[in-house]
Amino acid sequence: MTFSQKLRNKLDKMESHVCVGLDTNYELIPENLKGNKSITDSIFLFNKKIIEATKDITVAYKINMSFYEALGLEGIEALYKTTHFIAANLPETAIFADCKRAEMDHSASMLKRYLIDWLQFDCIMLTPWFGYDSIKDYSEDKKIGILLYAHDSNPSAKDIQDLKLDNGKFLYEFIAEKANEWNKNGNFMVEAGATYPLQFRKIRQIVGEDMPILTSGIGPQGASLHSLKGLFGRSGKRLIVSSSRKIIYAGKGKRDYFSEVKKVAESLRKNLLILSKE
Amino acid sequence: MTFSQKLRNKLDKMESHVCVGLDTNYELIPENLKGNKSITDSIFLFNKKIIEATKDITVAYKINMSFYEALGLEGIEALYKTTHFIAANLPETAIFADCKRAEMDHSASMLKRYLIDWLQFDCIMLTPWFGYDSIKDYSEDKKIGILLYAHDSNPSAKDIQDLKLDNGKFLYEFIAEKANEWNKNGNFMVEAGATYPLQFRKIRQIVGEDMPILTSGIGPQGASLHSLKGLFGRSGKRLIVSSSRKIIYAGKGKRDYFSEVKKVAESLRKNLLILSKE
Repeated sequence: MTFSQKLRNKLDKMESHVCVGLDTNYELIPENLKGNKSITDSIFLFNKKIIEATKDITVAYKINMSFYEALGLEGIEALYKTTHFIAANLPETAIFADCKRAEMDHSASMLKRYLIDWLQFDCIMLTPWFGYDSIKDYSEDKKIGILLYAHDSNPSAKDIQDLKLDNGKFLYEFIAEKANEWNKNGNFMVEAGATYPLQFRKIRQIVGEDMPILTSGIGPQGASLHSLKGLFGRSGKRLIVSSSRKIIYAGKGKRDYFSEVKKVAESLRKNLLILSKE
Repeated sequence: MTFSQKLRNKLDKMESHVCVGLDTNYELIPENLKGNKSITDSIFLFNKKIIEATKDITVAYKINMSFYEALGLEGIEALYKTTHFIAANLPETAIFADCKRAEMDHSASMLKRYLIDWLQFDCIMLTPWFGYDSIKDYSEDKKIGILLYAHDSNPSAKDIQDLKLDNGKFLYEFIAEKANEWNKNGNFMVEAGATYPLQFRKIRQIVGEDMPILTSGIGPQGASLHSLKGLFGRSGKRLIVSSSRKIIYAGKGKRDYFSEVKKVAESLRKNLLILSKE
């Protein structure tokens, strides 16, 4: 199955736009889960419970790798166990490598071995800074998804991504156009931050109604859900809304941590679904 | 000691501009070195021998992390052993993390834990795509060097980095200006690919004579050494020339692999030194 089929099947079948971000910070895992377990086992157990609570709500999992790498080999082993657990138990659910990477030539094939072969991610999230050389090695393989960071949600994203070019277009528009141009195998996506609604709207216009867009910036970063109205794409099923902290730490201080996680994820799912149909 | 002092001391004292790239590909390590050793031990032994052969020739080591990550935990452990070996035995020699990364907010601090605290790199090579949010967490710590990819050596670097802005400047010039503006602690550097001599010249003009520039693209990527003439900066001591494959695999098929490595690195050192004084 190609990445495009895997992701679109899920988006079409499931009444959800939620993408749970497994950006697990070891320090924030409840102490009673840790017990005497190793760092690896504590993280993996926490993640398994988050996955159990959200697997019928989320259309994909996104993992910011730096949270695991920060802990060295033990963290990276927990990442490995987590991605393999998802790949084995939820083969229809895509996993996004939020790594903000880019490599060319020999090192592109090395990065592919790390992220796709070893870690079993489905989609690599790439910085477009180095141009097509850093993208072509993945784009030719239809099993791999490629997400380009077109416009991000962070405040300084505008420093670079909103630069105006001499042809009157903005840099983020240029990247969205490139995502179209490079998308020969239907495996491209772009990110558009919810905190920049004007830019988001422009990106949707450029990439069209069928390209899935991943967005972040809802919640802790301050964008309102309402800003997403009209941006859901074809049949209201081509938008993926990433949320991490707000979901995975929702259980903090609650009697049943993971029921609360499920409740918060489900609430986001419902609110997005209503919005997608407006 | 700050990163600026560490690197400048080395550049000022040593008659060299060579930066050996430890982009070790396990498959290319001589079989007789591997023997019955594990992947980790084979890579670490090879690297130690490369380091032994080049430590008096190189001003820094640059490591493209993807070569290690491709091998999973065993590769990453070899990377850990290598960086710790350099940090312990050659504390005056900076190590560059060629990772092409960028993270913001929580994840920026996580990346710092991975690259600086755990792996003991001295300098993080960052993609400027996300603006200052992805840079400030490192730039405030004077012990950490920051290298921005301003203009790279790969063919498609021009796709993005040579875009002309509406103020008449090119995007790579904008990044070089930002490197100046953000460089409040003297710990910034930029990369300028040797395969783009006009852009390189412009970058040197913008960042001035004292900012160290790292260049690549000599040798396998086709730029001639001569293109570097006049770009060495203050006293001819502010240019670092990265070379990996051409040095670390120089011994292939030779009776004494590591003597050949040393010979090739020494020849590059001499040629660059002559050029820096022209």
